[in-house]
Amino acid sequence: MSKIKVVTIGRLYCSGGSSIGKLVAEKLGVPCYDREIIEMAAEKSGIPMSEIKKYEESIINPLKKPISLFGNVEDISEKIFAAETQVVYDLVEKGPCVIVGRCADFILKNKVKTLNVFIYSSLDKRRQTAMGEPHNIPEDEVDTRLKKYDKKRGDYYNANTNKKWGTKFSYDLCLDSGRLGYDMCAELIAHAVEVSK
Amino acid sequence: MSKIKVVTIGRLYCSGGSSIGKLVAEKLGVPCYDREIIEMAAEKSGIPMSEIKKYEESIINPLKKPISLFGNVEDISEKIFAAETQVVYDLVEKGPCVIVGRCADFILKNKVKTLNVFIYSSLDKRRQTAMGEPHNIPEDEVDTRLKKYDKKRGDYYNANTNKKWGTKFSYDLCLDSGRLGYDMCAELIAHAVEVSK
Repeated sequence: MSKIKVVTIGRLYCSGGSSIGKLVAEKLGVPCYDREIIEMAAEKSGIPMSEIKKYEESIINPLKKPISLFGNVEDISEKIFAAETQVVYDLVEKGPCVIVGRCADFILKNKVKTLNVFIYSSLDKRRQTAMGEPHNIPEDEVDTRLKKYDKKRGDYYNANTNKKWGTKFSYDLCLDSGRLGYDMCAELIAHAVEVSK
Repeated sequence: MSKIKVVTIGRLYCSGGSSIGKLVAEKLGVPCYDREIIEMAAEKSGIPMSEIKKYEESIINPLKKPISLFGNVEDISEKIFAAETQVVYDLVEKGPCVIVGRCADFILKNKVKTLNVFIYSSLDKRRQTAMGEPHNIPEDEVDTRLKKYDKKRGDYYNANTNKKWGTKFSYDLCLDSGRLGYDMCAELIAHAVEVSK
């Protein structure tokens, strides 16, 4: 495959996707963009972070429908995605990078050569991660929380792309971070970029 | 993860799993075992290859129920799997290797450190492969054939293991051979073995 410019990382909640993204970026000497893209999008779109957070909360808990000056849920969702798309374009213009989440695989499809990665691990491993630092989720809430956050990610991805979140066919490479370890995952992803030409 | 001794490869039909297995073995300088395991198992179990082929045919086409001196379908299936298990144990005793198919990931679970890989690619890519050399499957039969052979592999795996064939959670690493190319897949698998310790 031709030279990979951008690594995009999708991930199950508490599977270590963000940490692995950072490690890949370190190995390659490029920046890693994660949730800061939301802040940049907030600035670009004029929708304040407080509104975006309300909107995100409403996906996790549909009973909390946001009341907003910026339109209904669908309007805000579209505005946020449009702003994030523009932020992703701008970041990629600056040079090679790693992008965690934000449907970057789909956004960049015809823009630049990407390696689209998905990180997963067993429910047991994710439970352990969820109960540890920095998440500290109480044991009796872990399963509900994992399910909710995965659903939130899946719904966001499925609503904004023509692909299905989490199925291997939506990605080039899927890695079990629990079995392989974070460093091995990062090593393999970085190696793919290095040997691509 | 600790030093990987054996690479096991599961694969969708016509996704290049066998070719990638050979390439990995070449890169690592170890043997690759594929369908020859069936012949070795035939010899070990005393069930002739002609009977095993009849049995395999019956999975693809359930109307062709084999009539056999070696018992009913379930008996033969169990005998074949027991013989294949023993062959896999014997081969692994000889040293590091690559094993394509035969539920080797499950068979070796508590025996030796394995890297369990699954190779897939898009339906379009697999159609192209199926219609080319050496398969030469006619266009109007391709979809049926891909479906049947995948089902055969899935049924065999699901019947003989406590895992589910093809789902990413059953493997450590899943690679899209159509997007990455066979050589990149082999390179990443071999690299995982090389850097494991």
